[in-house]
Amino acid sequence: MKDLEQALAAVASIFTDNMPYNDFLNLKVISMTAEKTEIEVPWSDAFIGNAHHKILHGGVTASILDCVGGLMVAADIVTRSESLEKAVLLNKLSNLGTIDLRTDFLRPGRGEVFVASAHLIRAGRKVAVARMEMHNEKGEHIAFGTGTYLVG
Amino acid sequence: MKDLEQALAAVASIFTDNMPYNDFLNLKVISMTAEKTEIEVPWSDAFIGNAHHKILHGGVTASILDCVGGLMVAADIVTRSESLEKAVLLNKLSNLGTIDLRTDFLRPGRGEVFVASAHLIRAGRKVAVARMEMHNEKGEHIAFGTGTYLVG
Amino acid sequence: MKDLEQALAAVASIFTDNMPYNDFLNLKVISMTAEKTEIEVPWSDAFIGNAHHKILHGGVTASILDCVGGLMVAADIVTRSESLEKAVLLNKLSNLGTIDLRTDFLRPGRGEVFVASAHLIRAGRKVAVARMEMHNEKGEHIAFGTGTYLVG
Amino acid sequence: MKDLEQALAAVASIFTDNMPYNDFLNLKVISMTAEKTEIEVPWSDAFIGNAHHKILHGGVTASILDCVGGLMVAADIVTRSESLEKAVLLNKLSNLGTIDLRTDFLRPGRGEVFVASAHLIRAGRKVAVARMEMHNEKGEHIAFGTGTYLVG
Repeated sequence: MKDLEQALAAVASIFTDNMPYNDFLNLKVISMTAEKTEIEVPWSDAFIGNAHHKILHGGVTASILDCVGGLMVAADIVTRSESLEKAVLLNKLSNLGTIDLRTDFLRPGRGEVFVASAHLIRAGRKVAVARMEMHNEKGEHIAFGTGTYLVG
Repeated sequence: MKDLEQALAAVASIFTDNMPYNDFLNLKVISMTAEKTEIEVPWSDAFIGNAHHKILHGGVTASILDCVGGLMVAADIVTRSESLEKAVLLNKLSNLGTIDLRTDFLRPGRGEVFVASAHLIRAGRKVAVARMEMHNEKGEHIAFGTGTYLVG
Repeated sequence: MKDLEQALAAVASIFTDNMPYNDFLNLKVISMTAEKTEIEVPWSDAFIGNAHHKILHGGVTASILDCVGGLMVAADIVTRSESLEKAVLLNKLSNLGTIDLRTDFLRPGRGEVFVASAHLIRAGRKVAVARMEMHNEKGEHIAFGTGTYLVG
Repeated sequence: MKDLEQALAAVASIFTDNMPYNDFLNLKVISMTAEKTEIEVPWSDAFIGNAHHKILHGGVTASILDCVGGLMVAADIVTRSESLEKAVLLNKLSNLGTIDLRTDFLRPGRGEVFVASAHLIRAGRKVAVARMEMHNEKGEHIAFGTGTYLVG
């Protein structure tokens, strides 16, 4: 079990350390298990999509939801892998990709910290589907999402 | 008609000049009419979502589609406005927002320049719906999208 | 409060009694409150979309999700109405319509009774968004959905 | 090539003859090639979802779009198959299923005959994506759709 935790932590670090765009988002993984993933993104003025209202660009919100959904699918792939060797996992994860993503924008994207979480509603060998949500630090729902991902 | 063109150009400049995130995207408006809008985004290493494959982060693609769809709806609002005075237009546009966005990722986001276009499939007084697509400079389809926008 | 319950029951009966297609579905409203709506549809051989596997046609699943989502929005409209007079409610409900609907098919549509529920994630004056799910009598998740509805 | 046409016609007849729900829809296949599929559904009072306005239930529209999208993917599977033997094709088609479907309702579903068409925007070995549209006999756009399908 400790091996699994280490493997999940290693995958989380790929998301946060090796992706320039996630670096721009300043994305931090809070939790990553087979049941649920959670990430955090602090407000940045660079995310502003409406200068007058000072709210998040819709694309930033969609990006955060896509990240946490993809991380959820990655957690599922790692957890179900018969081997936790790095090369095996990297090979499996190299095929992971978003097929389609629906984003529902519910409230203006205001806040100091945005917390997004995901859980799987379909976990297949070819395709996985995740449902995501994003709140701000006050617990206000900013957005929901549904993503379909290609697996393995 | 010249007034309309000027008004549309003024709105285009709001998208490109006053939104920090669109500045990050380095977004350029190619055309903006009541029939179709088109934008261009040059490749940047900051957009990378997969360091191994050097392809666009899905969130960047979703962002570009949301931008061109929103611009299309803005063009419709301006074209249908009974007045082209700046204060009137700004007031109408201040209510424009994305309700939901579907992004279909078709091919890995590789290329030197990404061109995205949108056309309206529903133009109502309360809600508008746009269909979008994004190609690279070789004409390869990278992504499609459908966005529902709140109007007025 | 009794008046509200009666008004909701009256609206529920419009859904079940005055819509030929809902009659085909043999749709029954289980609960309809401002928080959550739930409907039930018994299996019928007429719903079969795959003769070999004897499973629900995807269109039937989408139909059931659209119904329960629309009912949820109707419940919200009734609950928030300043008047519960029939003419006022009918007028408000006459503008209710689905703008877009996403259906996620998770498992083959097998079962004796399908139970679908909805809750609102956005309740605006112009647009409402509902999230829906459908299970069979064994509690297996058959489908999820998200619907955007035009209101008032 | 004649063999391919015959194989496609055989698959079309599975859609129209062996699916009770498609029988309810009274669905007729107009054309089915690797490039585009087109189906026709005549108005029926049984489709009414709004007794007051006498318009199609949204679920019927979603059903028609799902059908023509699925038919498009089936046409692609048949066209790309190395063998056109019935047993081989049936085996390949038995795995075809809708993963998710987005329906955009544009205008009230009024008309005497509804014509729906689909084309592929992604044709993979595991997943295919189709874009669909539906018009009435006057050429009015009633609805658009996007469907993601599991293949093979």
